[in-house]
Amino acid sequence: MKKPKWVIEKEQSRRASAAETVWLFGLHAVEDALLNPAREKLHLIVTKNAQDKLAEAIGKSGMEPEIADPRRFTAPIDPQSVHQGAALEVKALDWGSIEEVCMGAEGLAPRVVLLDRVTDPHNVGAILRSAEVFGARAVIAPHRHSAPETGALAKTASGALERQPYLRVKNLSDAMEALRRMGYLLFGLDGEATQTIAEATEGKLNRPIALVLGAEGPGLREKTKETCDALVKIPFSGDFGSLNVSNAAAVALYAVAPIPRG
Amino acid sequence: MKKPKWVIEKEQSRRASAAETVWLFGLHAVEDALLNPAREKLHLIVTKNAQDKLAEAIGKSGMEPEIADPRRFTAPIDPQSVHQGAALEVKALDWGSIEEVCMGAEGLAPRVVLLDRVTDPHNVGAILRSAEVFGARAVIAPHRHSAPETGALAKTASGALERQPYLRVKNLSDAMEALRRMGYLLFGLDGEATQTIAEATEGKLNRPIALVLGAEGPGLREKTKETCDALVKIPFSGDFGSLNVSNAAAVALYAVAPIPRG
Repeated sequence: MKKPKWVIEKEQSRRASAAETVWLFGLHAVEDALLNPAREKLHLIVTKNAQDKLAEAIGKSGMEPEIADPRRFTAPIDPQSVHQGAALEVKALDWGSIEEVCMGAEGLAPRVVLLDRVTDPHNVGAILRSAEVFGARAVIAPHRHSAPETGALAKTASGALERQPYLRVKNLSDAMEALRRMGYLLFGLDGEATQTIAEATEGKLNRPIALVLGAEGPGLREKTKETCDALVKIPFSGDFGSLNVSNAAAVALYAVAPIPRG
Repeated sequence: MKKPKWVIEKEQSRRASAAETVWLFGLHAVEDALLNPAREKLHLIVTKNAQDKLAEAIGKSGMEPEIADPRRFTAPIDPQSVHQGAALEVKALDWGSIEEVCMGAEGLAPRVVLLDRVTDPHNVGAILRSAEVFGARAVIAPHRHSAPETGALAKTASGALERQPYLRVKNLSDAMEALRRMGYLLFGLDGEATQTIAEATEGKLNRPIALVLGAEGPGLREKTKETCDALVKIPFSGDFGSLNVSNAAAVALYAVAPIPRG
């Protein structure tokens, strides 16, 4: 019997995802990954100097490093990268399904950030960092047209990549609908919105809230806007300019923080 | 009669500052500077292609560009820079004194951001951008140990460098005292603080407020902390991590926004 097309596609996607490996670099990112038991580690390349600095983490990871000459660092990373003599090939982390990661539980009302085609790894790294700080359950982005888990992203995330769920999904609108079924209110950030994020979320900070942000310039796609419960803006005093997307995410997470602030 | 040492030093510092030129690069940053009448422009190098794209701005500026071969772009900038075929040598903008820029006037209570040894140009660029968006009067940083007005900073600032006052001062504590004399309350961001920024500023959002941020890692220097009226923190839900300094600045500016948000 022939397999249906969707089964074949799902299998292909799984295989691709399983094969996907990333080279992390820099002392901090490599150390965090070495110390993360959930991280599947494949290959470690270090200079003698970096080996000394990472001795404890390497010991705990049980990995056998390949020692590289600092003048000919052999890891397949961008030669401009500030690798500090350390590079580690890893598999992308498997955080589980949206339901597993985002379902409400006891404690504070959950928060989630969704990214609509935000492709810059530095922005996504900074957003992962803010999401972790503000206790968001997950950052969710589509597989295509978004920043993959790369060394540059890991470095900007400053450790958060190992701890903050970053879920890649096939279709952002489907993920939004799944969150809605779990009780989330979906707020899309849009400079043209008529209500502020504080106005729109007043009296609702005890509810699960998902914040949806688009790339600078194009903003949210029409389909994404339509799937939101409401579009909201961050109120600005200036006549010019707009916030960088990672700054907008941090402000939005602060604005909907479920903890008492006053 | 011999000039006193402080007069000589002041004159030297003035001469150095007057001679200081910067190469801006990238279509967006160069266009913004060309269209800024307050910007002293010295030398423009463009490819034929960039000349076409910037035709209107070049016309308005009255500058005679030097045309460069795209394969041998001659401007003295980092070869890794994404210059898009356009580079412009300029002098740093003269925004005037702290008093001129930060003195209260009619309208909303003023806001100012002070940076204590924040040296990363991308962070300072993003902070200038947020400062503009939230209508802050100025971003103030010491001459030494802070990010100079460079091409990389201008690019991250995305136009804000031409419009948002960025004042470099000799001594940060002196600048803080000057702001205090103008009626500003000085709040230093410090993860170890006991009160949140919302708690500390409650009922005071109609007052002039200056926010003081330190570099990631070292944070505020002792002398800077002592000069603040209060140390405040951004409340975090997570157990790990800290905000990137530009994200912390954006959240803090939002948290003390003088405009009605509810």
